[in-house]
Amino acid sequence: MSANEIESLLFLLSKLPGLGPRSAKRILLYLLKNKDFLLDPLIEALSKMRNNIITCSLCGNIDITSPCNICSNIERQNLSQVCVVEEVADLWAIERSSVFRGTYHVLGGTLSAMEGKNPGDLNIESLVKKVAANSNIEIILATNATIDGQTTAYYIAERLKNYGVKISRLAQGIPIGGELDYLDEGTLGEALKMRHGM
Amino acid sequence: MSANEIESLLFLLSKLPGLGPRSAKRILLYLLKNKDFLLDPLIEALSKMRNNIITCSLCGNIDITSPCNICSNIERQNLSQVCVVEEVADLWAIERSSVFRGTYHVLGGTLSAMEGKNPGDLNIESLVKKVAANSNIEIILATNATIDGQTTAYYIAERLKNYGVKISRLAQGIPIGGELDYLDEGTLGEALKMRHGM
Repeated sequence: MSANEIESLLFLLSKLPGLGPRSAKRILLYLLKNKDFLLDPLIEALSKMRNNIITCSLCGNIDITSPCNICSNIERQNLSQVCVVEEVADLWAIERSSVFRGTYHVLGGTLSAMEGKNPGDLNIESLVKKVAANSNIEIILATNATIDGQTTAYYIAERLKNYGVKISRLAQGIPIGGELDYLDEGTLGEALKMRHGM
Repeated sequence: MSANEIESLLFLLSKLPGLGPRSAKRILLYLLKNKDFLLDPLIEALSKMRNNIITCSLCGNIDITSPCNICSNIERQNLSQVCVVEEVADLWAIERSSVFRGTYHVLGGTLSAMEGKNPGDLNIESLVKKVAANSNIEIILATNATIDGQTTAYYIAERLKNYGVKISRLAQGIPIGGELDYLDEGTLGEALKMRHGM
């Protein structure tokens, strides 16, 4: 393997999350074998994304317009429910459930002592502004059930408490189809504490 | 997630070997976060590969020239040793060892009853022609030590036997650093059978 073109492409591919030098090679050879079906459409789709996809100035979602199609939906805006998530991928996950009909706010990560992430590194100020502008708003904190995620949720709840808005968190408990025998004690304890009448 | 651009890119990424819908999403968001450092260079490198990388007409390697830089190396050509491999990735692996100084012949796969791959689907005829044109040639069969790889090696040896050329196979045995306790019986048996004086 000598051509610079190949070397530099392998290097770039191996930098993608989840990929290494070996999987990058496999992908490169696969792309070369499928030029018409895969390589050409992929180059075109990447270029289109490069040129068209932008971050929504209201919520931090990615879309071809800003405000994004969720924020520009009047019905969803009017609901005044804002679901606060860590990343765009979490927003997509909640959209898949089709249960939430309000709008979102993407933080862009969590507070993390390990990674040195401070409140200033997240989109928290814009959330505070949203809340200050609308006291009817309901904030649903949907950060991950990890230590960093929960810390971030508590921090945000603390920042917003003087505005008198309704703040809630996602319920914790047994996942659908979960077998008690296989669940960790933390989840089981939480499910017991949060038990509700039938 | 609604924009068609995102959907179609996710679909293409998830078709790459080793990736699925979830890793495709992770890669897409990572690319968007690193437009300048990763997305732009990647689009450029893919386009360059699309336009410049070709398959060597002599050996089946990929390079920016045909014959490739290995085949066009007079010293390597003169050695008259041809290493027969299944895929370009195998060629790269042998090149990394820096032991082999001859040229290659990439078959493009193996015979496989399961996948319905016949001799006509592999680059075997061009190998026979190489051998017919040069009786001094030495053929080293470096297919994988799998059933399909070995079947293919035997088939090729059979096809070439009337040309009176030297044909050899890669040695099988204990890998460097291998601990006997962890090796399968097949490898151990092969290593015992092929033992040599010190």
